[in-house]
Amino acid sequence: ALEEILAPLHPADIADLLEQIDDRDRKDLIRLWPHGIDGDVLSELDEALRDDVIAALPAEALAVAVRDLESDDVVDLVEDMDSDQQEAVLDALEAPDRVAVETALSYPEESAGRLMQVEVVRAPVHWTVGETIDYLRSHDDLPEQFYHVVLVDPRMKPEGYVTLGRLLGSPRATKMADLTEDSFRTFRVDQDEGDVAYAFNQYHLISAPVVDEDDRLVGVITIDDAMAVLDEEHEEDILRLAGVGEGSLADRVIGTTKRRFPWLAVNLVTSILASLVIALFEDVIAGLVALAVLMPIVASMGGNAGTQSLTVAVRAIATKDLTGANVWRVIRREVLVGLVNGLIFAVVMGLIGWAWFSEPMLGVVIAIAMVINLVVAGLAGTVIPVALEKLGIDPALASGAFVTTVTDVVGFFAFLGLAAVMLL
Amino acid sequence: ALEEILAPLHPADIADLLEQIDDRDRKDLIRLWPHGIDGDVLSELDEALRDDVIAALPAEALAVAVRDLESDDVVDLVEDMDSDQQEAVLDALEAPDRVAVETALSYPEESAGRLMQVEVVRAPVHWTVGETIDYLRSHDDLPEQFYHVVLVDPRMKPEGYVTLGRLLGSPRATKMADLTEDSFRTFRVDQDEGDVAYAFNQYHLISAPVVDEDDRLVGVITIDDAMAVLDEEHEEDILRLAGVGEGSLADRVIGTTKRRFPWLAVNLVTSILASLVIALFEDVIAGLVALAVLMPIVASMGGNAGTQSLTVAVRAIATKDLTGANVWRVIRREVLVGLVNGLIFAVVMGLIGWAWFSEPMLGVVIAIAMVINLVVAGLAGTVIPVALEKLGIDPALASGAFVTTVTDVVGFFAFLGLAAVMLL
Ligand SMILES: [Mg+2]
Ligand SMILES: [Mg+2]
Ligand SMILES: [Mg+2]
Ligand SMILES: [Mg+2]
Ligand SMILES: [Mg+2]
Ligand SMILES: [Mg+2]
Ligand SMILES: [Mg+2]
Ligand SMILES: [Mg+2]
Ligand SMILES: [Mg+2]
Ligand SMILES: [Mg+2]
Ligand SMILES: [Mg+2]
Ligand SMILES: [Mg+2]
Ligand SMILES: [Mg+2]
Repeated sequence: ALEEILAPLHPADIADLLEQIDDRDRKDLIRLWPHGIDGDVLSELDEALRDDVIAALPAEALAVAVRDLESDDVVDLVEDMDSDQQEAVLDALEAPDRVAVETALSYPEESAGRLMQVEVVRAPVHWTVGETIDYLRSHDDLPEQFYHVVLVDPRMKPEGYVTLGRLLGSPRATKMADLTEDSFRTFRVDQDEGDVAYAFNQYHLISAPVVDEDDRLVGVITIDDAMAVLDEEHEEDILRLAGVGEGSLADRVIGTTKRRFPWLAVNLVTSILASLVIALFEDVIAGLVALAVLMPIVASMGGNAGTQSLTVAVRAIATKDLTGANVWRVIRREVLVGLVNGLIFAVVMGLIGWAWFSEPMLGVVIAIAMVINLVVAGLAGTVIPVALEKLGIDPALASGAFVTTVTDVVGFFAFLGLAAVMLL
Repeated sequence: ALEEILAPLHPADIADLLEQIDDRDRKDLIRLWPHGIDGDVLSELDEALRDDVIAALPAEALAVAVRDLESDDVVDLVEDMDSDQQEAVLDALEAPDRVAVETALSYPEESAGRLMQVEVVRAPVHWTVGETIDYLRSHDDLPEQFYHVVLVDPRMKPEGYVTLGRLLGSPRATKMADLTEDSFRTFRVDQDEGDVAYAFNQYHLISAPVVDEDDRLVGVITIDDAMAVLDEEHEEDILRLAGVGEGSLADRVIGTTKRRFPWLAVNLVTSILASLVIALFEDVIAGLVALAVLMPIVASMGGNAGTQSLTVAVRAIATKDLTGANVWRVIRREVLVGLVNGLIFAVVMGLIGWAWFSEPMLGVVIAIAMVINLVVAGLAGTVIPVALEKLGIDPALASGAFVTTVTDVVGFFAFLGLAAVMLL
């Protein structure tokens, strides 16, 4: 009955199902249907759960599972395992596959070398369409996925590629070298996977050869894997912007608490800093408690405006749209946007402050502080991410803490400082 | 000279260059090099600039530019134009292309019908490999991009597809129907493009047929376009989470101000709400100004913890990882994480509060308020996005405002309320 329901599901959906049920149900399911958890399910599975699931699988089921996978999927599966488990999986592979996987593991984490499959279809650059098709027909273990035939010179350096569509649509006598595509570009084994994903999206690549330090063809990256990386990079950015470490929904309470803690600790320090600014004006507040009521508004508006600017900047840096060529124009724009919105909200909040506490000067003070803080928010929200990027720090990771510190400190200081001067 | 520098660049890079230079340089570049701005450059160009660039192009250059594009790229180019400009582009097309584009435009915005290209390679389901290859060879206008031959029944209903790799690797006598792939799935013209992009990523699709209401094959979507949609959906989520409307770096000050304004206005309302809570305790603050100094800390920690929870929830909803099956487990986890972190920061902040103002009860008050607010943050940060999703509202768009309102109000109320009871 279990078999009937689960067998028709796509491995990615079985993996999602395993992720969404609780620990006990998961153990039961694996026990009742071990051969259903095949290699494709394992490679789709969230990393947080893989170890548990693999530990629960009988050894021979695991061996069968990994033997069907392409080399890149085996690499993805084993790269985060501890060495015992890794050894168990590698032992299940046939010798050439094992070598391929071990070579890939020798490249840096999150590099093109880890992302590529070694299963490549290549042809000498002097071949014709007919020779290539005959070769493909005679070959009985073509990769599951391939979209180009890569043309190589005698030293194995890739010279270009031909799409299968053009190969199929051309007469047998045509030279392969006459059918190559403009989109051809190669990646080096040690290039960052994020740059690879960016290039696939920017240049509409479908597959791209990977070369080693000597420019020799060693593998090929396909777009489905680049798309998965793009999705992961996005997840990383969105979670880092919110001060959440990488992790997954399947993580337990303790793991999650540990990953959330550091940014909350940073936030505690920065908010104490803001409180020290308030403490400078204790006497002023004691003289007019309305100030304590209104002061969070200025800080909050600045924090929001700063977050808007920094998110736009962080995203534009990630898509390589914010560069030296336009950074000054963008900073100028953000400051002006802060000024215009600052003026509008200054008038609104000035009137509210005056009406609420029947004190016109209180309205003037909050209005001026609002303009100052929104202008500073636009400036800090752009300059801070750009500066962090220049320093080699991921702007998604740290910009938020810096920007909100600036807007809190400036917000409280401007509002309470002006009140001290103008109201008392 | 200009030609020499720019001609070797990829159209996507020329488009980026046009986006990053200022208005005057852009006009000069278009005037000096009009035939360099071809269809591919136009379709890569940011929508905010397309109208300007197209208006600056001579009519015949525009006509040449669009005639080379596949139907899906023409659709993407014209769908946001006003009707005059759209008419001008459509007039430049040959009759069958024009019909294809107009049909696509009749489907809803952001649907599979807008994303597909009508250029499909299909074969009757009873054909052999040999028949298919002969047909492809005899056909001289195959699409620029295709990865599958779609098998159709006499009513044009797609029955399966064969990858070009398997076609090339199989003997001529093999039946096409024996080579079909398991990954086969079709989309309906009216399906949302976001769901299409999700399915491409989840099921590792490379291309997928699109059918109309009668299940007839009308086009095909390729992964490069799905990848671009995935990237756009990411951009939308990340900007919406920060309360920034859609737009681009190339937008001017006024446009940007208008898009930022609404969420700042919402934030003004919610922070006034928080101030009303503070106003309830004016007398308490007047009695002990230290409360005004410390109160932003509790609110800020709650806001941060809430943002962490809501970002995780919004992302998990977008990736369909947070569902009815695990929502209670996730809520429970977030509340417990809030409790544990709350207890840790309660101790830390309690000691700081006590030491700072030499008043042990002040430490106790801030400690209890901290625990309450972080627990509420975990709860609200998960329940609010889930509830918004159920109501059909994009949780990326509205969760932030709701969650920080809750954490501000609860933070101030708990801290000042406890102070009123325990300190005075
Ligand atoms: Mg999954
Ligand atoms: Mg794969
Ligand atoms: Mg990996
Ligand atoms: Mg990375
Ligand atoms: Mg792969
Ligand atoms: Mg990143
Ligand atoms: Mg770009
Ligand atoms: Mg671009
Ligand atoms: Mg579009
Ligand atoms: Mg959409
Ligand atoms: Mg396309
Ligand atoms: Mg969305
Ligand atoms: Mg998923």
